[in-house]
Amino acid sequence: MKYNKNFYQIKSNKEIFEKIEKEKGYIGYYNLPYQDTSYIKEFAKNVTQKDIVVVGIGGSSLGTFAIHKFLQHKENDKKLHFLESTDPLDLQRRISKINLNDALFIIISKSGTTVETVSILKYLHTLVNIDSSNTICITENDSKLKTFAKSRDIKTFEIPKDVGGRFSVFSTVGLVPLAIMGLDIDELLSGCKEVSDSFFSQDEYYSLLMEKARFLVENKNRFNINVVFSYSLLLEGFNKWYVQLWGESLGKININGTKQALTPIGLVGPIDQHSFLQLIVEGKRDKTVTFIKIEDFQDEMTIPHLSLEGLEELDYLNDIKFKDLINKQADATIEAIEGLDDIPCDVITIQSQDEFNIGKLMFSYELLTSIVGKFVQINTYDQPGVETGKIILKEKLK
Amino acid sequence: MKYNKNFYQIKSNKEIFEKIEKEKGYIGYYNLPYQDTSYIKEFAKNVTQKDIVVVGIGGSSLGTFAIHKFLQHKENDKKLHFLESTDPLDLQRRISKINLNDALFIIISKSGTTVETVSILKYLHTLVNIDSSNTICITENDSKLKTFAKSRDIKTFEIPKDVGGRFSVFSTVGLVPLAIMGLDIDELLSGCKEVSDSFFSQDEYYSLLMEKARFLVENKNRFNINVVFSYSLLLEGFNKWYVQLWGESLGKININGTKQALTPIGLVGPIDQHSFLQLIVEGKRDKTVTFIKIEDFQDEMTIPHLSLEGLEELDYLNDIKFKDLINKQADATIEAIEGLDDIPCDVITIQSQDEFNIGKLMFSYELLTSIVGKFVQINTYDQPGVETGKIILKEKLK
Repeated sequence: MKYNKNFYQIKSNKEIFEKIEKEKGYIGYYNLPYQDTSYIKEFAKNVTQKDIVVVGIGGSSLGTFAIHKFLQHKENDKKLHFLESTDPLDLQRRISKINLNDALFIIISKSGTTVETVSILKYLHTLVNIDSSNTICITENDSKLKTFAKSRDIKTFEIPKDVGGRFSVFSTVGLVPLAIMGLDIDELLSGCKEVSDSFFSQDEYYSLLMEKARFLVENKNRFNINVVFSYSLLLEGFNKWYVQLWGESLGKININGTKQALTPIGLVGPIDQHSFLQLIVEGKRDKTVTFIKIEDFQDEMTIPHLSLEGLEELDYLNDIKFKDLINKQADATIEAIEGLDDIPCDVITIQSQDEFNIGKLMFSYELLTSIVGKFVQINTYDQPGVETGKIILKEKLK
Repeated sequence: MKYNKNFYQIKSNKEIFEKIEKEKGYIGYYNLPYQDTSYIKEFAKNVTQKDIVVVGIGGSSLGTFAIHKFLQHKENDKKLHFLESTDPLDLQRRISKINLNDALFIIISKSGTTVETVSILKYLHTLVNIDSSNTICITENDSKLKTFAKSRDIKTFEIPKDVGGRFSVFSTVGLVPLAIMGLDIDELLSGCKEVSDSFFSQDEYYSLLMEKARFLVENKNRFNINVVFSYSLLLEGFNKWYVQLWGESLGKININGTKQALTPIGLVGPIDQHSFLQLIVEGKRDKTVTFIKIEDFQDEMTIPHLSLEGLEELDYLNDIKFKDLINKQADATIEAIEGLDDIPCDVITIQSQDEFNIGKLMFSYELLTSIVGKFVQINTYDQPGVETGKIILKEKLK
C-alpha cells in the first residue's frame, strides 16, 4: 500500500509559514520592499513631458492605476493616461486626450509579446515617431520587447524574472510611472516593509494574516465569495487590482486535482449600499465581507447649515463633514451586517491617504494571497488556464 | 393536516408567464416602452446649458450612466457629469470639472429623501444659487423633493410610483438626461418594445428568456455566480447596472423563508482575460458565463503594416482592424470555455452601438430578472435588507 502524502489536508500555521519562508528564495515579490530605488528616482526627476502614458494590460497597469487613483491629490501636475484595451472607440477617446508631442510612452509587458500592448504600440507609430526621446520600456531582461528597445536605443527598466505580473506593482512596473508622477516611492516601500518585517518576525501581521487565511480556507466551500467593500471611490482601482490578484492567483487546480476557487468581488460604499448590499444582507450565506475604511480623509468639505423647504427632516445632516458622513455610513453598514451574526466580516482601517498606507494595504493583500495559496496547495503564481484562449486567438488571426 | 401549498417548487413556464402577465398590472416598468415622450423631447431641445449634472445614486444614475457610456459617440457636445458618492475627495474632483455657471442640475431621487443626494444638493447651494433657472428635479409626485421643487418653482418630472429605482432607466429618470444629451429616446424605447412585444406574444424572447431563467434557477445552488463578460469597455456602465439589477432584485428571502442568491459579476474583455479568466477556467464550477459582443464597432482603426525589430513574431497582427481583433479575442475566449464542456455559457451579440440595441439589451435583462424572481418566489422589487443600515446611520448622525 502506498499512502498519498499529498492528500489534501489543511496544514498547520507553522508548516505554512515554513513553506512561505522557503518560497521567499525563488518568488521575487517578497524582496521588492528592500530594493534600491535611487536609479528610478534619478530617472523620474529628469522627465520633462507632461503627459505620461502607460501602455500595458492586467498586471502591467492595474497596480499603478490603483495607487494613482488613491493618491492623485499628492501627484504633481503631470497627467497619467492608461492605454490597455483593444476596444477601438475607447482607445480613440483615450488617445484624443493625450498631447502626443509632449508625451512619454511607457510600454510595459513582462513577456514582451502581449497582444494588446504590441497592437497599441504599433498603432501609436502611425501617430508619432516612437523613439528614445519619448519612449521607455519596462520588461524582462531578455524579452523581445527588450530587443525592440535596444534596436532604437530606447531606455529600459527591468522586471525581475521571478516577479509575476500581478505581484509586480512594487517593481519597476509601478515604481517608474508613480515616481514620475511625483509620488514618494520609498514611502510606498516602507509600508510594504513594515508588513513584511512584522510577518516574517511572526509579529502582528503574522497572526492577522494567518488567522484570516486559515478562516477563508477552512470555510471555502461554504463561503466561496470574498467581498471587499471599500468606503471610498478612491479605492476603486485597488478593488480591481484585488480582483485580479485574488482571482488569477487562487483560481487553480491544486496538487490533488481539485478545482479551487475563492471568488473576489470589489464594491465601493456608499454607492453599493444602493446595489449589492441587499444581496449580502438577505441573500444566501456564501460571502465573507472585508470592509476598508479611511480614517482621515484629507478634506474638510462640510454640508452647510441649511434647511430646505420640504426636506427639513434631513436637517440632521447639517454641519456634518462629508468625511464623517461617509465613515458613519460605513459604520452603520458594518453594524447592520455584524448584527446578523452569520456573515463573516472584518474591517481594515487605513490611517491616512498616503504612500505608506497604500503600500501596507497592498503588500498585506499580496502576502494573504500567498498564504491562502499555500494552504490550498496550488501554484499561486502561474496562470495556465488562459493559455488555450491565446492559442485559439493566434490561429484565428493567422 | 394542512399542506403548505407555497412549498417551494419550480413552477411550469406557463404558470410563471401567467404570473408575469398579472404583475404587469401593478409593476410599472413593463409599461414604460409604450409611454408618450413628446414632453421630454420638447423640454430637452430647449436646454441651453453645456454641463449637465445628474445628482443621484444607485437606480437614479446607474442606468443613465450605462447608456451614456455606451453611446457617447452619438451625443451632442454637452458634457454629462454624475455626482453620487459622499466621498469628499472624489466629489471635489468631479465638481471641479463642472462650469457651475453654465450647468443644469438634475436632482434625482424617487423617495425624495436619499441621504447622499440631499447632502450633495445642500453642498451645491454653497457654490451656486439653486433655482428654477439651473435645476430640475425627477421624483415621485408627492415626495418631499417635490415639495422643495415647488417652493422654488423648479420644474419636476415624475417617476411613477409603481416603477422601482433599479427598473427606472426607461422612465423620466433616464430619458430626461439622455434626451438632453441628444440621444434618440424613442429608439431606446423601440428596442424595449421589440423585446416586450416578442415576450408577451410568446415569440422569440419568450423562449430565450424563459429557458435561460429556468436553467439559472434549476442550477442556482450549483452555479451561484452569474458572470457577464462584456467585450467592450463601453459596456462597463452596463455591467454595473446589471450588478445592481440582479443583486438587489434577487438577493432575497423567499416565501418559504429561504435565502436566495444569484450573485452577479461584471467583467470586460479583453482586460479581464488578464485577470478573472483564469478563475473561470480552472476554478471551482460555480459560475455561469454570458458573453456580450458588439458585432460592428463603428470604427475602422487598424493596426499598421509594420514590423518591429525583435517583435516580428507578432506581425500576424498587421493590417487587422481593432474591431476585428477584439471580436476575435472574444471568440477565442468563448471557444476555450465552450471546449471545457462543464461551464454553462451563452453569447449575446449586439448588432450595433445605437439606442435601439442598448434598449433591447437592457429591457431583456429587466424581464429576465422578473422571470427569475417569479421562479424563486420572491418580491423582486423591494429591498428590505438595506433598511437596518439606514436606521443605524440616522441614529449615529442625530
